[in-house]
Amino acid sequence: MAEKKRKSFIFKHHFKGKPKESDFQLIEESLQTSIADGEFLIEMVCLSVDPYMRPYSRRMKEGDLMIGTGVGRILSSQNPLFKEGELVAGPFGWCTHAISKGHGVQVLSDFGDFPPTYGLGVLGMPGMTAYFGFLDLCNPRPNETVVVNAAAGAVGSLVGQIAKVKGCRVVGFAGSDAKVEYLKSIGFDEAFNYKTIASLESTLKVSCPKGIDCFFDNVGGTFFDTVVEQLNHRGRVSLCGAISLYNLEGPPPKGPYIHTAAITKELKIEGFIVTRYTSKYPEAQKEMKQWISEGKIKVSEHTINGFENMPKAFMGLFEGDNIGKVVVKI
Amino acid sequence: MAEKKRKSFIFKHHFKGKPKESDFQLIEESLQTSIADGEFLIEMVCLSVDPYMRPYSRRMKEGDLMIGTGVGRILSSQNPLFKEGELVAGPFGWCTHAISKGHGVQVLSDFGDFPPTYGLGVLGMPGMTAYFGFLDLCNPRPNETVVVNAAAGAVGSLVGQIAKVKGCRVVGFAGSDAKVEYLKSIGFDEAFNYKTIASLESTLKVSCPKGIDCFFDNVGGTFFDTVVEQLNHRGRVSLCGAISLYNLEGPPPKGPYIHTAAITKELKIEGFIVTRYTSKYPEAQKEMKQWISEGKIKVSEHTINGFENMPKAFMGLFEGDNIGKVVVKI
Repeated sequence: MAEKKRKSFIFKHHFKGKPKESDFQLIEESLQTSIADGEFLIEMVCLSVDPYMRPYSRRMKEGDLMIGTGVGRILSSQNPLFKEGELVAGPFGWCTHAISKGHGVQVLSDFGDFPPTYGLGVLGMPGMTAYFGFLDLCNPRPNETVVVNAAAGAVGSLVGQIAKVKGCRVVGFAGSDAKVEYLKSIGFDEAFNYKTIASLESTLKVSCPKGIDCFFDNVGGTFFDTVVEQLNHRGRVSLCGAISLYNLEGPPPKGPYIHTAAITKELKIEGFIVTRYTSKYPEAQKEMKQWISEGKIKVSEHTINGFENMPKAFMGLFEGDNIGKVVVKI
Repeated sequence: MAEKKRKSFIFKHHFKGKPKESDFQLIEESLQTSIADGEFLIEMVCLSVDPYMRPYSRRMKEGDLMIGTGVGRILSSQNPLFKEGELVAGPFGWCTHAISKGHGVQVLSDFGDFPPTYGLGVLGMPGMTAYFGFLDLCNPRPNETVVVNAAAGAVGSLVGQIAKVKGCRVVGFAGSDAKVEYLKSIGFDEAFNYKTIASLESTLKVSCPKGIDCFFDNVGGTFFDTVVEQLNHRGRVSLCGAISLYNLEGPPPKGPYIHTAAITKELKIEGFIVTRYTSKYPEAQKEMKQWISEGKIKVSEHTINGFENMPKAFMGLFEGDNIGKVVVKI
């Protein structure tokens, strides 16, 4: 039998503008199978690429293993809490095999019939991001109007569906007609291709006749500016991401000050990182599983095969390639 | 006895840039003393000028009575809840006499030995603004660092002192050396003249070695941008005012997007108008009175005499003339 190899992707260069294939370096080495007490060895089944990796990379050093979540199976273990053969999800980085001590690792034994990839999406970080970032920060009430952008993405598609569960009117924006169709198929009240509408301002006015109460922002920039102007009194904004700003070079872009709108309309604008809610994940996962089983949440995944395609999968996020969660199967 | 006159100031022109004397028109007319059932007639003792009147004026029509709060004595009453001789505070506008049905009017019978002018300041709108805007939105904890700008103003000077009551470290910014001395005299840990410091950024770094947890913003603009960059993880911003932006003409000024800082540091930024808390004023007034009696809150007023000086008093707010609450005695 041939010696097993471990592959990984190193963050070779800090990104300039959009990430490029040459910003990553594929490393191939012999798989180290000897593990110390408390450790366990995982072989990845699937890996995640997510937009947050772009801004997060500013804090990384060139030469670091690219960060990210993976789902894998335990090949061997010296840790009684993590048993050989179990499926686990954790922050293993872009690699085919990892040795872990269990920090931040969740055993997926209670996933039932759900596929392992759900541990990277609807029941993983993006799902928790949608659940807590929307419910806790926007505090939606029935019949309120919710606007979501990047709405066909891993997080946005879930935010819209959770908003429908809560009895809201949901208006979504995405970047292709196929995505718009998808959003309508999963229950969005209205959906628009932001690339082809005449004006975001007038589209919002027509599609949100009662104004906007909750805004889940994945995009930032001028989209943010325009929605803020149309928020209702005591409107709430959950700042989840700013994909329109991630790849810009040069001086930071500017927008109008929020003060006049925020004071006059008493707006609450809050940014968050989902790890704030880690201790509450189990209850959220339980509720999300229930909603999936009842057909209230439909899950869409965009699957790419082959570890070597990690950079391509990641770069595709900024081209709008995906509907739903992008998952790389190893 | 000469016939009694009623004087009032009409909002003659929408402001262009800084308010000017000629934007107001003084009206003098015979005092109408006949009142209908449910009404009462008030003779003003003192009137308030406040920065909010500048942005609020955009929603006024030329020819309207200038808005504002006054404290006055009831000359006659056909309303059993408001008795002749009582002192009341209410939204009477810029006038020497008003007829009211009681909407938004508070009887100041429980003011004890406090002067009537406190009904325009520490126990009125600015006091409630400081109390709720700081405590409810910033949710300060002992030993946290609080930054306040326009700190020698009616609201800022109270925010800083309330923060000290709550055990915080308080750093204030104001526009003259005399104001800086005043802030130190009322217990601010550090105070700076923003007009003479070399750099706000470096001043904040030195004076807030543990970073900034709470920011009570009366100023907006580049001050806001600079503080946001130095907020700690889970920092809270109470957007109370934006005096640096009120008098600007031309296209709205722009600043860097908040997204990167707000998401990375999970910031909460909230605007408010104090009337949100009206039903809770009595409990706040009780606590403020207690703090004043205990010497924990020191009250400073900047008194201007004569109704005719209302425009001058108002214009002075934008020149930084005042320390503490500006009150016009009639």
